[in-house]
Amino acid sequence: MSTHAGRSAVLPNGGFCVWLTGLPSAGKTTIGRELLTRLRALGYHAELLDGDEIRQGLSSDLGFDRAGRESHASRVTYMAKVLARNDVIPIVALISPYRTSRARARAEIGHFVEVYVDTPIGVCETRDVKGLYKKARSGAIREMTGVDDPYEPPESPEVVVHTTDATTAQVADRLYGRLVELGWLPRS
Amino acid sequence: MSTHAGRSAVLPNGGFCVWLTGLPSAGKTTIGRELLTRLRALGYHAELLDGDEIRQGLSSDLGFDRAGRESHASRVTYMAKVLARNDVIPIVALISPYRTSRARARAEIGHFVEVYVDTPIGVCETRDVKGLYKKARSGAIREMTGVDDPYEPPESPEVVVHTTDATTAQVADRLYGRLVELGWLPRS
Repeated sequence: MSTHAGRSAVLPNGGFCVWLTGLPSAGKTTIGRELLTRLRALGYHAELLDGDEIRQGLSSDLGFDRAGRESHASRVTYMAKVLARNDVIPIVALISPYRTSRARARAEIGHFVEVYVDTPIGVCETRDVKGLYKKARSGAIREMTGVDDPYEPPESPEVVVHTTDATTAQVADRLYGRLVELGWLPRS
Repeated sequence: MSTHAGRSAVLPNGGFCVWLTGLPSAGKTTIGRELLTRLRALGYHAELLDGDEIRQGLSSDLGFDRAGRESHASRVTYMAKVLARNDVIPIVALISPYRTSRARARAEIGHFVEVYVDTPIGVCETRDVKGLYKKARSGAIREMTGVDDPYEPPESPEVVVHTTDATTAQVADRLYGRLVELGWLPRS
């Protein structure tokens, strides 16, 4: 296992959760990884809780119907809460299509930054990182968010990022800047 | 939510997991709470992952048959691993009756201290904190570890504690001392 002993940069207001929500292939994981790399390089404890990876760890039993998605979001929420209260920065990259699940996460975690990765579905479908749009359009899979399952966009997220006309580095710059503005990271 | 901002005591070898295993009512949670209090008072980040509490957060879907217990242990393992590699001390209080589950936890977490809370079943049954032995003996519940489900004692745990002739404070003293001897906590 890799330990991060030696990381000891201090957060001005303790741990907080960065919750990236958006359609499949919107860019959540890519942005999350970039932010994770930057935070660790600066000496912070941070973890990427990526939807697909964490399903293996916590939710291999769950499906992608509404109940399965909500249970998964609630387990991720629990884990993020425990991390954040120990001064770790959990970065959640999860479609999390339902407003109610995200509202529960916000209420339970408290220190919460909702980031809407606002990539138009046409762009997501062109990227189709995991080939899921293609499968959904052909009927090979069901319950695909954006195709035959709803995505409820955030109404008042702390941050909205656009990925179509910006590099990953530019998006991460902007997100980092907002975290400073919001008081979660210190001004350098 | 409560944050623990300001905790910043440094661990000489990074985070590590204290895994308390033993029969129901052996004293795992009581010892875990006492250790948690001491570690936090000294400025360490620590979390008690208590079998019953964490089931609500991660495993409300799972039963107490072998498959359910193993899945639960593997989710707790995942969470403990992520905490430990961020310099948090997860204290797991979980019956964890199977050697295989505990061996997997050890392999996956790496920084691992197995603590066998070796309380004789007669004593556990007299305590019967949750009334489970009574229910199991009357047949009201099944799959009760120690009654109609096996408990496999550790073969080479890092620590064995006895709770029958010692106070909680004495047991915690001994456990704390062993963590120092093992190099996980600094000598004061």
